[in-house]
Amino acid sequence: MPVPTIRWEDGRVIIIDQTRLPLEEVYIPIENIHQMWEAIKKLRIRGAPAIGIAGAFGVYLGIKDYFGKDLDGFLEAFEQSCRYIESSRPTAVNLFWATAELRKTVKDTEEKKTEKLKEIILKRCIRMIDEDNEVCLTIGKNGEKLIKDGYTLLTHCNAGGLATAMYGTALSPMFLARQNGKNIHVYVDETRPLLQGARITTWELLHAGIKTTLITDNMAASVLKNKNVDMIIVGADRIAMNGDTANKIGTLMLGVLAKEFGVPLYVAAPISTFDPEAETGDDIPIEERDR
Amino acid sequence: MPVPTIRWEDGRVIIIDQTRLPLEEVYIPIENIHQMWEAIKKLRIRGAPAIGIAGAFGVYLGIKDYFGKDLDGFLEAFEQSCRYIESSRPTAVNLFWATAELRKTVKDTEEKKTEKLKEIILKRCIRMIDEDNEVCLTIGKNGEKLIKDGYTLLTHCNAGGLATAMYGTALSPMFLARQNGKNIHVYVDETRPLLQGARITTWELLHAGIKTTLITDNMAASVLKNKNVDMIIVGADRIAMNGDTANKIGTLMLGVLAKEFGVPLYVAAPISTFDPEAETGDDIPIEERDR
Repeated sequence: MPVPTIRWEDGRVIIIDQTRLPLEEVYIPIENIHQMWEAIKKLRIRGAPAIGIAGAFGVYLGIKDYFGKDLDGFLEAFEQSCRYIESSRPTAVNLFWATAELRKTVKDTEEKKTEKLKEIILKRCIRMIDEDNEVCLTIGKNGEKLIKDGYTLLTHCNAGGLATAMYGTALSPMFLARQNGKNIHVYVDETRPLLQGARITTWELLHAGIKTTLITDNMAASVLKNKNVDMIIVGADRIAMNGDTANKIGTLMLGVLAKEFGVPLYVAAPISTFDPEAETGDDIPIEERDR
Repeated sequence: MPVPTIRWEDGRVIIIDQTRLPLEEVYIPIENIHQMWEAIKKLRIRGAPAIGIAGAFGVYLGIKDYFGKDLDGFLEAFEQSCRYIESSRPTAVNLFWATAELRKTVKDTEEKKTEKLKEIILKRCIRMIDEDNEVCLTIGKNGEKLIKDGYTLLTHCNAGGLATAMYGTALSPMFLARQNGKNIHVYVDETRPLLQGARITTWELLHAGIKTTLITDNMAASVLKNKNVDMIIVGADRIAMNGDTANKIGTLMLGVLAKEFGVPLYVAAPISTFDPEAETGDDIPIEERDR
């Protein structure tokens, strides 16, 4: 079974500290907005959907101890919390999606009592987890139909449970296939330079009892040619309206290799990954980071 | 200018210790066969042609202090030295090529005096360096004609001077292009898992004053698509008679990408890399090592 990346429990957020994986499986409580800011900044929690949910809970933790009863003061504190959380990883669009969702929630309600508003915000945060689980499970169910018993798969980077609330996108079909008793074998690109495949995807798959082989990225060509890989599943950072997909460096390599060796490649992502502003892949900005 | 990987000086072999690159440029003297065995075993010297030459000198160091005058005793010591050196890296075919060359040299001469035989063996060793330099320079001159001023190139692993006596195979055309005043820019795959590109090729190119950009292996697709790469040059471990080439893991990936993006890929290697026993690539055994 996948592990819960983030959950609400007894007035605290509990996250698995991803910086300590794969050597240690440590769950840490997040009790205030500053701890959440630090957890996002330091990549203790990562992956687009998971960051969005974490950010929303961060905002809630920022206003939950607001003791005043005046609406204006509360709304100011709420806005400050949103901006503070947005500053933790300014390039992560999901953070801004999450704060926008909370702002809309607050704007749309007619509730004026601060205690009630807090409850409404918390409910919206919790619903984000439920929505994410539903979306990922739907991806999983659709994808699982394509996976036959005995299949060999290949994936890149981490589009697993730890990038979302629990089930992941690319890995969700694999988790469900395993749960349904199918024997599968997954090759995982280590995914240089930050090794998300080696550190996180491998850990998740082994944790779910799936036969897993870690390879270096440059081995994918030989594996696709020689190891009877049946399908490749990857996640997506952003999808243009024509279907062009941007994902972690190395995915283009897999696309070209998949075509050469006749292996189908599937992109597993929720509707929210489509960018209506991007007509084709050329409209998607690609980050070239210093590290 | 490339650095001399291995040279004979004042009765000793001087090698650059490749395990300390790129952080330290340290030349160490090798004074006896045991030191050479250790240097080969521990990868202080590596690269197919360089290992062959090192092995031959190792055999010479093993017999150079043989004080007896009887031919049979000398030949026995010579044979023991050959076998000992062969045991340092049993999978390196060039070691066996080198000991075969020395055995042939000893067999073909009519000389019976042990002191004279030592001289003949040493001369054959020194000639291996000269032959290697000549072969690599010829590769370089042929390859350099294809490189225009302002070209962008890409290479994989290390087929540089450090893999040979001095000039290398894949890098030889680049060194000559630079010496002839051409401005070139070389992208270097880091070459996981052992990082020969990152550690050694990058060091060699920068040492020769060539503009160099280190990339992770999985970036090659994006670089070929977006950075106007004019040509790819790689070395070869073994070439079948139909031209199929076996080289470090990741070269197949480059071949497929080169075809997709219309970038010419050249294999730079001496005639000795052709295997007359191998009709096609299927006849070339591929190592899958534990690490």
